[in-house]
Amino acid sequence: MKDYNFLAGQIRDKKSYLCVGLDPDPLKMPGDFSRNDLPLYLFSKAIVELTHEFAVAFKINVAFFEAYGPSGWEQLAMTLSAIPKECLIILDAKRADIGNTSARYAQYYFEVLNADAVTLHPYMGLDSLDPFLCYAHKWSAILALTSNPGSADFQLQPMREGLFLYEKVIQTFAAHPNPHIMFVCGATHPEAFSSIRNLCPDRFLLVPGIGAQGGDLEEVIRRGRNDDGGLLINVSRGICYPDGDRPFDESVKELAFGYQRRMARVSFGS
Amino acid sequence: MKDYNFLAGQIRDKKSYLCVGLDPDPLKMPGDFSRNDLPLYLFSKAIVELTHEFAVAFKINVAFFEAYGPSGWEQLAMTLSAIPKECLIILDAKRADIGNTSARYAQYYFEVLNADAVTLHPYMGLDSLDPFLCYAHKWSAILALTSNPGSADFQLQPMREGLFLYEKVIQTFAAHPNPHIMFVCGATHPEAFSSIRNLCPDRFLLVPGIGAQGGDLEEVIRRGRNDDGGLLINVSRGICYPDGDRPFDESVKELAFGYQRRMARVSFGS
Repeated sequence: MKDYNFLAGQIRDKKSYLCVGLDPDPLKMPGDFSRNDLPLYLFSKAIVELTHEFAVAFKINVAFFEAYGPSGWEQLAMTLSAIPKECLIILDAKRADIGNTSARYAQYYFEVLNADAVTLHPYMGLDSLDPFLCYAHKWSAILALTSNPGSADFQLQPMREGLFLYEKVIQTFAAHPNPHIMFVCGATHPEAFSSIRNLCPDRFLLVPGIGAQGGDLEEVIRRGRNDDGGLLINVSRGICYPDGDRPFDESVKELAFGYQRRMARVSFGS
Repeated sequence: MKDYNFLAGQIRDKKSYLCVGLDPDPLKMPGDFSRNDLPLYLFSKAIVELTHEFAVAFKINVAFFEAYGPSGWEQLAMTLSAIPKECLIILDAKRADIGNTSARYAQYYFEVLNADAVTLHPYMGLDSLDPFLCYAHKWSAILALTSNPGSADFQLQPMREGLFLYEKVIQTFAAHPNPHIMFVCGATHPEAFSSIRNLCPDRFLLVPGIGAQGGDLEEVIRRGRNDDGGLLINVSRGICYPDGDRPFDESVKELAFGYQRRMARVSFGS
């Protein structure tokens, strides 16, 4: 059971907010993996083995598996079982539907695949996410302010009552009694983190947008952390697809270690 | 290629807006199906065979297949190939992610599974849906005003500029040059259909919420139709899971025929 206190403890122990994003792309991975029958699994497993000592969570991008049909789903299940028990497993599925349909997704992710967390769209409102939120010890990561330019189209539009839409989303779900709700807030909006922390001082934030998308790691930590850590900072392409000519294993490990060291320096004084 | 004119023609020819929703649930289907190895496929195929002469579209609820893992996805692909060529195939997947991830979903649904349409969450904005919208002859069904009570939480909240959020969503995407964008608007909000038609007179609307959820079929047609038809009215539970003691086949067929007759009476004078 990877509950709130367990996650806060892992962050303290590992001096890390690092969530490694698994977006296995056969066109970008080394040929040793892509020439195999199970490229998605073998590549993801390698990344997990190289980085888990520096990471407190892994975020699995479901689309990259779903795109390969039944075999992709088999490799997804295999990937979950390759992740060490102490790391939070986040399925980045971005689902949400009416209640009886959301219940199908929730049961499959939480009970069959045994993931710890899933990412969710808030657009359909509270009752659409209830089937996820009613799992007392599973995490729901609700999209609030995403890292892409399109976040300006709706999320950053002002409501009549004075809040931006993303703030209204946070306010609505932050009132829920389940402590295992976190919000997805992109590192590409550092100026928003103070307002986010005012609305939900005690919630974890899942932060994409570091690395390839240009977010500033140190600024996100200074503005976004709370007393329990309160951050999971995701890096996908910036760890899994290294540039340069050095051996893949060495590069991936050093990139993950580099992120952990920077996190430790800002937050844990070492 | 099931483009705008083809769909409008089908509606005229069949005198029907009917979209039959496939939510195959082994706990609710007759035992002949649920005791089989491929219950999702065989049940869906039976519904398709019994109802296709009255329907212009089928909406496949992806969660009901995804919940069964790799076998579910095999049965999903088989179900798609059981649908007659003249009917629009809508994958009710409710996806959306940042661009490179949405591109994975779009390619799998449109090119591998060869679906005609997919349902999408608008929350992440225009660039998150671009990988779907750039298929000139495939349909994107964007959630606007959904049929569930939670539609009040965000979709029906007023923006500072005066529109409700769902109206802002419609306004934003209605300006897109691809005519194959439709909006999901629930039959449980009949009062909203006039405003919706003002914002997008020429778009198709995909309307859930008839039957089990209590929407009024005749009112939706009168308020929502346009010169090209402009409506796909979905019925899932109200056709696939008949009450009473009559034979399953007979009941399903008669329920679908009943909806088509009511549609013809209101819209096509017969």
